[in-house]
Amino acid sequence: MKIKLGENSYGKNAVQLSKIIRHPAYHEFRQVTVNVSLKGDFDEAHTIGDNSKILPTDTQKNTVYALAKDHFKHSIEDFALYLANYFVTSQAQVDEATIDITEHLYHRMVFDGVEHPHAYISGGGEKRTCRVIKSASDVGVQSGITDLLILKTTDSGFEKYIRDKYTTLKETADRILATKCEIQWTYDKLPADYTAQFNGIRELLLQTFAGHKSLSVQQTLYAMGQAVLEVYEGVREIHLEMPNKHHIPFNLEQFDIQNQNEIFIATDEPYGLIVATVTRE
Amino acid sequence: MKIKLGENSYGKNAVQLSKIIRHPAYHEFRQVTVNVSLKGDFDEAHTIGDNSKILPTDTQKNTVYALAKDHFKHSIEDFALYLANYFVTSQAQVDEATIDITEHLYHRMVFDGVEHPHAYISGGGEKRTCRVIKSASDVGVQSGITDLLILKTTDSGFEKYIRDKYTTLKETADRILATKCEIQWTYDKLPADYTAQFNGIRELLLQTFAGHKSLSVQQTLYAMGQAVLEVYEGVREIHLEMPNKHHIPFNLEQFDIQNQNEIFIATDEPYGLIVATVTRE
Amino acid sequence: MKIKLGENSYGKNAVQLSKIIRHPAYHEFRQVTVNVSLKGDFDEAHTIGDNSKILPTDTQKNTVYALAKDHFKHSIEDFALYLANYFVTSQAQVDEATIDITEHLYHRMVFDGVEHPHAYISGGGEKRTCRVIKSASDVGVQSGITDLLILKTTDSGFEKYIRDKYTTLKETADRILATKCEIQWTYDKLPADYTAQFNGIRELLLQTFAGHKSLSVQQTLYAMGQAVLEVYEGVREIHLEMPNKHHIPFNLEQFDIQNQNEIFIATDEPYGLIVATVTRE
Amino acid sequence: MKIKLGENSYGKNAVQLSKIIRHPAYHEFRQVTVNVSLKGDFDEAHTIGDNSKILPTDTQKNTVYALAKDHFKHSIEDFALYLANYFVTSQAQVDEATIDITEHLYHRMVFDGVEHPHAYISGGGEKRTCRVIKSASDVGVQSGITDLLILKTTDSGFEKYIRDKYTTLKETADRILATKCEIQWTYDKLPADYTAQFNGIRELLLQTFAGHKSLSVQQTLYAMGQAVLEVYEGVREIHLEMPNKHHIPFNLEQFDIQNQNEIFIATDEPYGLIVATVTRE
Repeated sequence: MKIKLGENSYGKNAVQLSKIIRHPAYHEFRQVTVNVSLKGDFDEAHTIGDNSKILPTDTQKNTVYALAKDHFKHSIEDFALYLANYFVTSQAQVDEATIDITEHLYHRMVFDGVEHPHAYISGGGEKRTCRVIKSASDVGVQSGITDLLILKTTDSGFEKYIRDKYTTLKETADRILATKCEIQWTYDKLPADYTAQFNGIRELLLQTFAGHKSLSVQQTLYAMGQAVLEVYEGVREIHLEMPNKHHIPFNLEQFDIQNQNEIFIATDEPYGLIVATVTRE
Repeated sequence: MKIKLGENSYGKNAVQLSKIIRHPAYHEFRQVTVNVSLKGDFDEAHTIGDNSKILPTDTQKNTVYALAKDHFKHSIEDFALYLANYFVTSQAQVDEATIDITEHLYHRMVFDGVEHPHAYISGGGEKRTCRVIKSASDVGVQSGITDLLILKTTDSGFEKYIRDKYTTLKETADRILATKCEIQWTYDKLPADYTAQFNGIRELLLQTFAGHKSLSVQQTLYAMGQAVLEVYEGVREIHLEMPNKHHIPFNLEQFDIQNQNEIFIATDEPYGLIVATVTRE
Repeated sequence: MKIKLGENSYGKNAVQLSKIIRHPAYHEFRQVTVNVSLKGDFDEAHTIGDNSKILPTDTQKNTVYALAKDHFKHSIEDFALYLANYFVTSQAQVDEATIDITEHLYHRMVFDGVEHPHAYISGGGEKRTCRVIKSASDVGVQSGITDLLILKTTDSGFEKYIRDKYTTLKETADRILATKCEIQWTYDKLPADYTAQFNGIRELLLQTFAGHKSLSVQQTLYAMGQAVLEVYEGVREIHLEMPNKHHIPFNLEQFDIQNQNEIFIATDEPYGLIVATVTRE
Repeated sequence: MKIKLGENSYGKNAVQLSKIIRHPAYHEFRQVTVNVSLKGDFDEAHTIGDNSKILPTDTQKNTVYALAKDHFKHSIEDFALYLANYFVTSQAQVDEATIDITEHLYHRMVFDGVEHPHAYISGGGEKRTCRVIKSASDVGVQSGITDLLILKTTDSGFEKYIRDKYTTLKETADRILATKCEIQWTYDKLPADYTAQFNGIRELLLQTFAGHKSLSVQQTLYAMGQAVLEVYEGVREIHLEMPNKHHIPFNLEQFDIQNQNEIFIATDEPYGLIVATVTRE
């Protein structure tokens, strides 16, 4: 059988870009990580080292900084759409461009209830994300959140599961449910205002998580996805990855101390991982 | 020259403990990482493998969980003091116990201005820290903050420094000042309420950073430390480590685009590191 | 449109297992990280919190340790096949089990040319990997290497690429080519001895990288994949991810010093990423 | 009490430098991370923002690259000595310069017993380190190893330790002893050839670890330090940090399977940490 090049792509990852947008009353500070990935007619670059259809990844990086000046003004989705379109339309050999942007969140410092005009503090590990995939004929937009670390101290249990010879886990009607979510949703209908949409969906996800009487991570995950699809008609489907950040009751009874769901070992590994897409028929 | 054991210590690191404190109206969730380190009469453990004076690190870990039930109710400093005292008083061979506690911050979720009674979201990378060093005759308490990522988009410059044959940096009267601080302060007079003190000092540090007209990282660092010592008489000295998280203007001019302090490369490495203790005469 | 559960799976990640196999003349030490992921009839766990078809991830973890005693004796592929088959055949509701194993490599210490019988040193960051996907009717086996950090100081150039208004990269006929590869290959015909196959493929990959006159990362990547497919008929396709670990010549000329390809800035970010599958027609 | 500046320093960290040294028969590839830290007369930089005695950290970085051309030819200690001396002698306001260098190890690829002239593979996580502290009147040199991950599958026990009400650990005469060492030694008498000295000390440390009948981590640590001091008269003292990378027997007995020291849970946290300096009287 003859050997050939299969699916392939290349691009620049981890382009670290920050921008100050100077509004009359305050400075808006934004920091993003941009990944560019291109697919297209790159066979001869691979097979004979012909680089004549290769836009260097260094140039891709320069392009991101150059276009940020005029085109990174609003949401990361808007900027990603501009970038993806630029690469597809300016480079004939490129069939498809994928732009991933991760936004590192900062908040203006607040003193006595007033936002400072130019001092910022990190918004923490949680990050806003998007992915735009653009070809000549098509465009897909995903928005999301990553590293969203949330937990509830009650209204969560795990019971009536399969028991076999290797089962040692105890059933519980009351446990800590903690997770560090990675969530992406795909739009059928692109919203006019991605940031408003993001804020609404994030709030709904948190509310659903907080209010849910959880019988399992799976059920809570599904409820969160379902809530988004019920309210946001423009969202086609939503993908959720919820690692179980276990907080395991410490066995104080061995020391004749009662542990009434008070003292836990917080563990990172091993961890349960629940992954699902909630979609429409 | 005869060979001998010099300074030595041992203990358990990274004891990951979480606790739910059940108040009538809500659940308080706390998560900490505890390090225990003991100094004392351990020569023969090293020289002849005699473990008769060794309290295993596994037992130290169990002790942390067991004592958390009744004694981790308020600040991390209070818990660290209890733990340090426990090890020094219960183990005759221990001369000095050092307890480091790092608190991972969580906030109750807020919906429509109301805090949820048992749903939490991570407070981000910033963590509250303390170190207690206890011997039979003495006790020292340090409180601090780590991974405090802050920045200001103006009111910061760096000019009139030494120029030599290897200088390429351009002077600037207006740059981004960003840093991820690690700060510890030492008490002369132990406060009644460590959390109130912590909150006050943290707020003062942020205010000073935000309001400072910075001529250098050194000057801003010193101003932050000075402010704390001026207001908090019980604080003997404060140590600040401020890595410079550089945001470097991207050279758009090479593309005939003006960069009026708008577009930056955010870099992690290499980084300037400014370290100083501000103290009293 | 009705909302429904789409693709989903769950399992235990980061099961850290080590094993001593006691041979007459020496101890064999093995350390692996196992991930289990199951697909199947889990709809009602999501939609109504019915856990009656859920084998807890805690039990999955226990199962890995329990089965390691008798069934982790040879390659990670052999153990993964046993585990995948166990979950599919013992759990009627499971349609497909995916087992990922990463092996942390250790070498016996060598003194005066002789391997020590029971003292080991880490083999470094490079790790051997496999993935087995098993359903009632089908099985797929991938083997691979991750975090393989390799470089060559010459026989690598990058020239004659597209130049546009954002191009600043200089062409070079002689640069450092450095990469931290992630490589997986898929078998059409399962080998009798996975470890022999792995060792042969790894050696061939290294030899091809070392000997290649590289006109681009793409060309070297393709040459490496092609070499494996030419020699190993049982390999259907091979996937290579090669991030470009840039070593950028430092501009010494600004100090009137010549830099004849001697002094470089080693950077992690941003980085070019070249990804391709080499396959058969 | 008046407020004043206490101990302080500043410098550039994480200067990532690589170098090709072109020998007639092969290329020597070196990659190091350099940290520069300066102490001196910097009071007014802190108190009034006067930068006239500040050599920018950016210039420090440039200096490292510029001096590497002619002065990074042999050991990292030699280069660190040159750098430290340069900063102290060329900058009147600098009282003391500390240079830390970490060397990332690479090995030439070997095919059929022959080293390739210019293809390299990473030497793994283990790194060689040094620290030089230089003032006008004095110089101190430390050499070391970091991230040295070693283990032995037998000849290690832990018994006859203190038992109290929180003790649950079982005594064992046969356990895995695994550690990821950080070791530094200080020279009284600077060696002519740092690399030969390093290689000799590293080999002796590994031999001692491998051959020791360990009654505790403490005892093995001490034996390793003692061996170095006994053989290397120019070494004044040696500091060892040995985290206990626990491999805990998995309780297979609960499934009616015997675990004869075969199957272990490898854990990163919590971990015992043993730290000591072995010195001379």
